[in-house]
Amino acid sequence: MAEHRIAIIGTGLIGTSIGLGLAAREGRNYELVGADRNRDNARTAKKLGALDREVGSLEEAAKGAGLIIIATPVMAARRILQDIGPYLEPGVVITDTCSTKGEVMRWAAEYLPESAHFIGGHPMAGKETSGPSAATASLFSGATWAVTPSPRAAERAVQVVLGLIETLGAVPLYIDPFEHDQYAAAISHVPLIASVALFRMVRDSQGWEDAALLAGPGFRDVTRLASGDPTMARDIMLTNREAVLHWIGRLEEELATIRRALEAGPEPIYDLFHSTQLDRDTFIQNPPQRRRPEGIEPPSARDAIGRMFVGGLYDRLKEASERPVRAPQDDAELRRKLGVEDDRL
Amino acid sequence: MAEHRIAIIGTGLIGTSIGLGLAAREGRNYELVGADRNRDNARTAKKLGALDREVGSLEEAAKGAGLIIIATPVMAARRILQDIGPYLEPGVVITDTCSTKGEVMRWAAEYLPESAHFIGGHPMAGKETSGPSAATASLFSGATWAVTPSPRAAERAVQVVLGLIETLGAVPLYIDPFEHDQYAAAISHVPLIASVALFRMVRDSQGWEDAALLAGPGFRDVTRLASGDPTMARDIMLTNREAVLHWIGRLEEELATIRRALEAGPEPIYDLFHSTQLDRDTFIQNPPQRRRPEGIEPPSARDAIGRMFVGGLYDRLKEASERPVRAPQDDAELRRKLGVEDDRL
Repeated sequence: MAEHRIAIIGTGLIGTSIGLGLAAREGRNYELVGADRNRDNARTAKKLGALDREVGSLEEAAKGAGLIIIATPVMAARRILQDIGPYLEPGVVITDTCSTKGEVMRWAAEYLPESAHFIGGHPMAGKETSGPSAATASLFSGATWAVTPSPRAAERAVQVVLGLIETLGAVPLYIDPFEHDQYAAAISHVPLIASVALFRMVRDSQGWEDAALLAGPGFRDVTRLASGDPTMARDIMLTNREAVLHWIGRLEEELATIRRALEAGPEPIYDLFHSTQLDRDTFIQNPPQRRRPEGIEPPSARDAIGRMFVGGLYDRLKEASERPVRAPQDDAELRRKLGVEDDRL
Repeated sequence: MAEHRIAIIGTGLIGTSIGLGLAAREGRNYELVGADRNRDNARTAKKLGALDREVGSLEEAAKGAGLIIIATPVMAARRILQDIGPYLEPGVVITDTCSTKGEVMRWAAEYLPESAHFIGGHPMAGKETSGPSAATASLFSGATWAVTPSPRAAERAVQVVLGLIETLGAVPLYIDPFEHDQYAAAISHVPLIASVALFRMVRDSQGWEDAALLAGPGFRDVTRLASGDPTMARDIMLTNREAVLHWIGRLEEELATIRRALEAGPEPIYDLFHSTQLDRDTFIQNPPQRRRPEGIEPPSARDAIGRMFVGGLYDRLKEASERPVRAPQDDAELRRKLGVEDDRL
C-alpha cells in the first residue's frame, strides 16, 4: 500500500483544497495522508474528507509516500525541505505550492537527496478566507498552475505533477523560477501590497467609521488581498524582496503619471482611462493563450494520478536533462525583457 | 396619467438597472419613460423591460414626469440640469446617481427652478461591465445609497427618493455633499486610480504577454475598476480633483510605509500584514451600522413608490428647512476629522 500514498504537508486553504480534489477522483487507488504543524487544521481537513488519515509528524507523512505535496508558506517549506530527507522513499516525487519559486528551487537542490524528484509548483488561485474550512475541491478549476521542475527531476516525475494539476482541473504553465518570481511580483505580490495600502489608507484616517459606510463592492474587491494569510504574505516578501521593491517603484511611477494627467486636464485623463479600459477588456475577453510545456505530453486528467503508481514509480527514474534551470547569465536578457534594468534589482 | 410617470435620463448600467427594479414592482401605478443621448442605449433598455417607453429628447422625458432620475456621468448631469428647467412640472422631484455630489448640488441650486425639489443620490454599486446590457434589477440589493437633499427640498420629496431607494433594495445613507466627496475619494475614487495604475504597470511592461499568463483571481479583482466607464471616471476626477489628489498622496505614504517595513525585516512586515488582516476581517464581518436619516421615517419599501403619487405630489410641497446644507464654516472641523489639514485640500 506504501506506493499508493500521497502526503499533503500543510492543510490550510490550498492543501485541504488539493485533498478534496484528489479525494473526489473516481476509483482512486491512493491513500491521502496529511500533516500540519497546527494539528487542528489537519483534523479539520480529515473531517471535511480531504484526507484519509492525519498524522502528527513529518516522518509519518513522508514514510511510504510516492508523492509529497508541500502546501505551506515559503519559510515553512524551507524547514520541511531541510528536515524531510531521512524519511523519503527513493524515487519520491515532491512538489510544493509556494508563492515564490527561486528560493524554493535552491533549497530543494541543496537539501533533498538525489533520489528525490522535486518539481516546483504554484497554483494561481486563492480566496479571501484562509484555513481548511474555506477549502473547496473546485478552487483550482481553470486556474493557471506554474510548474518549475528541478534539472534533475525525471520526465516521469514531471508527468506525475502535471497529472496532479490536471486532476484538480487546473492548467499547467511551464516557467523558469526567476521569471516566475518577477512576473508574480508584478501580477500578484505588488497587487497584494497595493490592496493592503488602500485598506490602511482609509482605515487609518479619522473619518474611517463614516467612510466605511460608503464602501461598496469596488472597495471590497480592491482590498480583498489584504485579508490573506499574513505569514504567507511575509514569506513572499522575504523571498522576493528585490522584485517586489522594483515593482512598487513602478506602481509609484504609474501613480505619478495619473497624477500628472489629472493635473493636465480632461483630455489626458480621459485618454488614460479609456486606453486602460480597452486594454483590460481585451485581457479579460481574450486572455493570453496558455502554452503546453514543450516536448511534454501531459497525461489526460482521467488517467494521470491513477497511472502514477502503475509501472513502478519506485524504479529509479532516469535522470532528465532536457530542461536545465536557466543559467545565471540568462538573467540579463530577462531583466531587459521585463524592463528591470535599474539598480533596484 | 402624467402624474404617474417616472423619467430616467441616462440608460446605461445604473439607469437601466433602476428601470428594471422599478418595472418589477408588483402592482405599480407609474409609467417608466427613458431617454439617452445614445438612443441605442434607451432602445436596449426598453427591449430589456426597463422602460415602458423611450423618448428622443429631454423635453419629452421631463414633461409630465413626477420623478426624474438623472443617471449619467457628472458632466452630462450638469448639461441636463442646465437645460431641463423649461420642461419641468411644478413640484417635480429630481434625483441623480452621480459619483460626486458637491458640484451636482451647486448646479442644482443654480440651474433648477424653485418649484423643483432636488435630492442628490449616489448608489454605491457597480459592475465590471457598463451599458444597459449589463443591468440587473438586483444591482442595488443591500447597497448603500448616499442621499444629499438640497436645503429647499421638501420632506415629502426626500421621502419619495428614500422610497425609490428602498424599492430597489438599497439602504439610504444621509450625508453632507462635501463629506460624501471626501469619503468617496478615499473609498472609491482613489481605489479606482490604484486599480488603473496596477493594470497599466503590468500591461506596459515588456513581459506583459508572459506575466498575464500568471494572472489569477487576485489580479482580476484588484484591477476590476479599471474596466469602468472612462467618461464616468474622468468626470469624477474633474469634480473631485482636490480630494483625489489628497488621497493619492495618502496612498503614496502607505506604500512608503510598507516599503520601509519590507526593508526593516520579517517582524515589521509581518506585524503590518497581520494587523491589516485583522482590521479588514472585522470590517467585512461587522461592517459599520448604517444610520437612518435623523428625524425622517422612511416609507416602507412596499408602499414607497406607490404612495408617491397619492395625495397630490403636484401640490406645491412645503419648504423644508430642517436640513440645511453644511455651512462653509463647518468645513474646517470636517477637514480636521478627515485628517486633511494640509494645503493640498
